[in-house]
Amino acid sequence: MKPVIVVHGGAGRIPQEREDGSRLGVTRAALKGHSILKRGGSALDAVEEAVAIMEEDPQFNAGIGSVLNEKGEVEMDAIIMDGQNLGSGAVSAVKNIVHPIKLSRLVMEKTNHMLLTDQGALDFARAMGVPEVPGEKLISDRSLERWKEYLETVSKATPTPVPVPNPTLTPNPQEVQKDLGTVGAVAVDSTGNVACATSTGGLTNKRVGRVGDSACIGCGGYADNNIGAVSTTGHGESIMKVVLARLTLYHMEQGMSPGDAADAALNSMKTRVEGLGGLIVVSNSGDWAARFSTENMSWATVKDDQLHCGISAGEIRTQSVEEALGSIGS
Amino acid sequence: MKPVIVVHGGAGRIPQEREDGSRLGVTRAALKGHSILKRGGSALDAVEEAVAIMEEDPQFNAGIGSVLNEKGEVEMDAIIMDGQNLGSGAVSAVKNIVHPIKLSRLVMEKTNHMLLTDQGALDFARAMGVPEVPGEKLISDRSLERWKEYLETVSKATPTPVPVPNPTLTPNPQEVQKDLGTVGAVAVDSTGNVACATSTGGLTNKRVGRVGDSACIGCGGYADNNIGAVSTTGHGESIMKVVLARLTLYHMEQGMSPGDAADAALNSMKTRVEGLGGLIVVSNSGDWAARFSTENMSWATVKDDQLHCGISAGEIRTQSVEEALGSIGS
Repeated sequence: MKPVIVVHGGAGRIPQEREDGSRLGVTRAALKGHSILKRGGSALDAVEEAVAIMEEDPQFNAGIGSVLNEKGEVEMDAIIMDGQNLGSGAVSAVKNIVHPIKLSRLVMEKTNHMLLTDQGALDFARAMGVPEVPGEKLISDRSLERWKEYLETVSKATPTPVPVPNPTLTPNPQEVQKDLGTVGAVAVDSTGNVACATSTGGLTNKRVGRVGDSACIGCGGYADNNIGAVSTTGHGESIMKVVLARLTLYHMEQGMSPGDAADAALNSMKTRVEGLGGLIVVSNSGDWAARFSTENMSWATVKDDQLHCGISAGEIRTQSVEEALGSIGS
Repeated sequence: MKPVIVVHGGAGRIPQEREDGSRLGVTRAALKGHSILKRGGSALDAVEEAVAIMEEDPQFNAGIGSVLNEKGEVEMDAIIMDGQNLGSGAVSAVKNIVHPIKLSRLVMEKTNHMLLTDQGALDFARAMGVPEVPGEKLISDRSLERWKEYLETVSKATPTPVPVPNPTLTPNPQEVQKDLGTVGAVAVDSTGNVACATSTGGLTNKRVGRVGDSACIGCGGYADNNIGAVSTTGHGESIMKVVLARLTLYHMEQGMSPGDAADAALNSMKTRVEGLGGLIVVSNSGDWAARFSTENMSWATVKDDQLHCGISAGEIRTQSVEEALGSIGS
């Protein structure tokens, strides 16, 4: 069958000055994944490499460019999943590496576990010879500014050091939309295998040790050759409440198209827990969708040598892969 | 409606000499949960207290009595979930506390997050004034013996310090069944709210930082007033692959009874990923089931002032709550 790759660069509100960078970033990632699939590579390799490119791109909230926790540090979550055997690897609250998605794949392939966290994840990275980088190398100017802004808001709003749920911190659609930018990819390869990958820096000013949806199987992503693959983005705690990726695939098992399943799942999340987000999905037969309930989500896909991408609701820009390769200057 | 509580003390192989202790432990926990529900308490309080009692009981692999990781330390995972609003709190790889389930509830109620891990979870426990205990207070003689036995097997099997998947470590049904003993509870209260709670020490000799199903929403537990509540136990990585708790509830949404849904979900896990385990489930109308694909699972339930409990397939012992209270000496 003809392979398909779909990527996202996060759901949220993308300011006009960042639109071009986001579009370029997801286009690059989709083309990278496509190039792997086109030469007969696996869905797993395609989603890993597509996400790895976005982890290196400070446009996105993953790897370099991750948002900062309450202590001004980068702590990242990621997951990768193989639809063939439901194998998966994930890391949570990991620091000092550029590619949590590659570490996730090592967890999947080199251990009998599926999720390693925090110091244990970093110890494993060292044992596997993964290059370590100083935390500040992952911090972009934008993340630092955003963190300082947030700290000011918080210091005005919370005179007490005791952790209590603060109404001013309760995610409201406007505030939360600034924070998003998780990256992800889904693919089906020429042999019909599907895979997903998701990577994120999480929420600005999150507590140390906060783990979001991206490390949790079924929430940040899910892949099953019998159905398809999903990668999600948006308000992590809401995505977890409805186990969004698996929910989308259940709708497809019940006969819905990828687009209808995505809309139904996002709609449940909005109505039941007032959560906003987005997702990309590909079926095992190569049908795909990119949907979101936030203002924007940058996404791109390559199928049949055509690249499609968009940022706003209803927007689809199309060009040939050849033209797209020219436009990104590679 | 009439409230119902169901608890489990873990799926696996329960040696004859531990049968009485396991039965007593789950009976105590079910009676504790029942006493809360009977006086009009919430499902959430009932599952929390039922699990907390088992965390204090060295019979079970949770809290005191948790199995040890590769370094001989206790690292625990837990989750609690409220079916009313899909709110949930969880902790992963947390040390030095007796009650991960109570810390999970604090995560749910006192933060805007759902999952805190490792050092961040411990920092949060300190900020909330949760009593800290030395790691060795959580270690039972049995856990220590089991860990030493396992270390010997491993040292014979793996001459290399490099972490690679080792065929002798790949979970096989016989070996893995020794390790289980996760505890959990599900309940529906008199107002029709459902809740679940799960707590575990994980797998003997697990890598530092390994997180299993119990901390992952949809895997170790799920609760939704529209359907019911589930708590799972068994081989964590297999449970994660099929998102077992949510899968069971999907089957119920499709019209299956709790028992049929539990059997179908456990059967999927066995056929698709060769995983063994068990689960307890209660529907929002008070129907319940306790099922397992392992040799044993200790479980108990109270409904209509009758206590039922069992350990082996097909075994159901029944007595009145009054008799049961007498038999546990309270």
